[in-house]
Amino acid sequence: MTKTILVICDGLADRPIRELGNKTPLEVAKTPNLDQIAIDGISGMMHPVDVGVRPGSDAAHLALFGYDPKEYYSGRGPFECLGIGMDLKSDDVALRANVATLDEQGEIIDRRAGRIDSTQSVVDYLGEIEIDGVKFIMKPGLSHRLGLIVRGNGLSHLVSNRDPKKVGVLPSEVKALDDTAQARFTAQVLNKFAQAVTGKLKDTSFNQERISQGLLPANTILFRGAGRLPNNLPSFKEKYGLHSAAIAAGPLYRGIAKALGMNIIFFPPQAGVTGKPDSNIKAKIDKAIELTSEYDFIFVHIKAADSLAEDGNFLGKVEFIEKIDQAIKSLVDHPEILVAITADHTTACELKIHTADPVPLTIRGLGVRTDDLQAYSERECVKGQLGHIRGIHLMPILVDILGLSTMYGA
Amino acid sequence: MTKTILVICDGLADRPIRELGNKTPLEVAKTPNLDQIAIDGISGMMHPVDVGVRPGSDAAHLALFGYDPKEYYSGRGPFECLGIGMDLKSDDVALRANVATLDEQGEIIDRRAGRIDSTQSVVDYLGEIEIDGVKFIMKPGLSHRLGLIVRGNGLSHLVSNRDPKKVGVLPSEVKALDDTAQARFTAQVLNKFAQAVTGKLKDTSFNQERISQGLLPANTILFRGAGRLPNNLPSFKEKYGLHSAAIAAGPLYRGIAKALGMNIIFFPPQAGVTGKPDSNIKAKIDKAIELTSEYDFIFVHIKAADSLAEDGNFLGKVEFIEKIDQAIKSLVDHPEILVAITADHTTACELKIHTADPVPLTIRGLGVRTDDLQAYSERECVKGQLGHIRGIHLMPILVDILGLSTMYGA
Repeated sequence: MTKTILVICDGLADRPIRELGNKTPLEVAKTPNLDQIAIDGISGMMHPVDVGVRPGSDAAHLALFGYDPKEYYSGRGPFECLGIGMDLKSDDVALRANVATLDEQGEIIDRRAGRIDSTQSVVDYLGEIEIDGVKFIMKPGLSHRLGLIVRGNGLSHLVSNRDPKKVGVLPSEVKALDDTAQARFTAQVLNKFAQAVTGKLKDTSFNQERISQGLLPANTILFRGAGRLPNNLPSFKEKYGLHSAAIAAGPLYRGIAKALGMNIIFFPPQAGVTGKPDSNIKAKIDKAIELTSEYDFIFVHIKAADSLAEDGNFLGKVEFIEKIDQAIKSLVDHPEILVAITADHTTACELKIHTADPVPLTIRGLGVRTDDLQAYSERECVKGQLGHIRGIHLMPILVDILGLSTMYGA
Repeated sequence: MTKTILVICDGLADRPIRELGNKTPLEVAKTPNLDQIAIDGISGMMHPVDVGVRPGSDAAHLALFGYDPKEYYSGRGPFECLGIGMDLKSDDVALRANVATLDEQGEIIDRRAGRIDSTQSVVDYLGEIEIDGVKFIMKPGLSHRLGLIVRGNGLSHLVSNRDPKKVGVLPSEVKALDDTAQARFTAQVLNKFAQAVTGKLKDTSFNQERISQGLLPANTILFRGAGRLPNNLPSFKEKYGLHSAAIAAGPLYRGIAKALGMNIIFFPPQAGVTGKPDSNIKAKIDKAIELTSEYDFIFVHIKAADSLAEDGNFLGKVEFIEKIDQAIKSLVDHPEILVAITADHTTACELKIHTADPVPLTIRGLGVRTDDLQAYSERECVKGQLGHIRGIHLMPILVDILGLSTMYGA
């Protein structure tokens, strides 16, 4: 059976940048290998969620795996929690959280507690908290981040964020987002939890120590993105019959893959797979090729083009795209593998945000229709045979290329 | 903040015309300025309502402003009434009406009473009519037209037209379009109203005078397009956060703009803004540019390409398109403004009707992706990066270009 590798380059697409002669980073970067994949394959433009819709990475990835976010997405929390290895039950409400610094008046000075390098001491100190019969379970994430699971009866994920995403203001009061007793109760216990945590963290020895070192104390927790794992989420294997693995450094992407039942592949620290601009992308691509002996479908996530664009660093983005291109060489050398290369959304360097502009998509494999493209870019892929598709169309197209899709009608 | 001007050229698009060498009026017309906007921008084809759907101007404009007509449109009446300055309550049923001429047998001789130049005397003579507790409020529109509001309890807009849109027949009996008591009652009072009005107008002095002058009397009222303003219509400002103004001569377009809370811009008579082929389009475009100092979004409606095509006057349409092009020069000279140029539908000169063919769309502004187009036309815009979109996608795309759209997911 033909094996498939799907490479999602986060935030790869862009808008024309004046300093780059009104070209996008992808147009400016020298990408002979990406171009070769496009020359050998079929291309098009993909609207990750829908035309004119600005996608978050979570909703976009669900769509690209064929799970309509309108049906399956409720919030980012569950995927972040799964991604850092927490166990999630179907009734749990899950949130992503930061430790942060409040001043004497309770206003936020720093949303990341001086970019503290770990939340382990905070989580250890707080232990498991129970309020009104509801358990609050925490686990450290990367640096200032942590996962927060709210477990109990009568909960709802339809509650607002405590994190106002700005400084100089009080944390937001959590509010019910609909008119149910469940949402009101959940908002209430989350507010009590926030108050309890802030009280407990005030005079801890590790915060005293941070203050004595001139560092900002981690004296509260801000949380957001409440969500639940959908009850009806079919696994990737159930949906497509494909045995799948995921290569991704970021907790969100691992979390989504885990939610879909993909096997998460870990690298030893010395492999240099970091999710940052210095990441060893070649190791990821080569590992994916190696895994085709064991899996039907391998998802590879490459992060840094997005982060660089969100910093407005278009030259860094060009350089990183050329680094991606070097890694893609291994895929050019394996024409027997079905390869799809795309992005989960556009990240515009000029605006430093995700935008709704569609992303280029190329699919290369034996038997795939080809077109007259000479390069892989936003401008070129428009001319491809795939035309404009939505994110949820990608997997049905791949499965059909493999000859595995079910027939509509008879 | 970047300001936006949306120019909707009514009925601009067409089908190939034999006498024009199988080209469309837009292909034949010399349009260096429209072409420049297309060269500098991103283009595509837009299906105003949906693929294969032949749009009325009302439904098309709602869609282009991002209001799905399936959700928000019930009939043209409310927009026509608003557009001539009538006050509409949310329970009112509103219709557009003509004064017309019936012969002795009650058959329609002329649907416009000899294109009478005003309905003021008719409206003044009839005053406010009340039948079975229902009020009928009228206001003169342009020439033979008037607005008709039906106000009272237990009404429905689901009633058929009295205007059969042809001569030599009796006016149609108004019928309920569903099986509710409200629709039956509304049909009944509208029929009673029609009978009462016809009786009253029979021997008026102004009709005697018209007859003595050899003119057709205005001895009845024909009405159609019953509708209601949707209760749930969010304003343009609520929907997009944009402070908006509308430059349009026709009551329908003013009415739609008013329903969405846009400010209607009026010109003094000497400005020559008429909505006809002689209209001073340049004054409208230049006014729109001037208004960018005060508003975020300006909608400019240009009418006559549609009227000329409905008369089958393809040479007149070519000439009028060249006149539009001259006015567009001012927009070429303002690259800092986000500009979108399109049509609300195709009007085919050969058929003299609206058709479902998609319309060319070009968006030009700082940061917008560009493509390889060399002209603005039905044939060229197909090659653009926007691909094929629906009318309701236009505003989300513009708002996203401005960097103002909300994120789906996180």
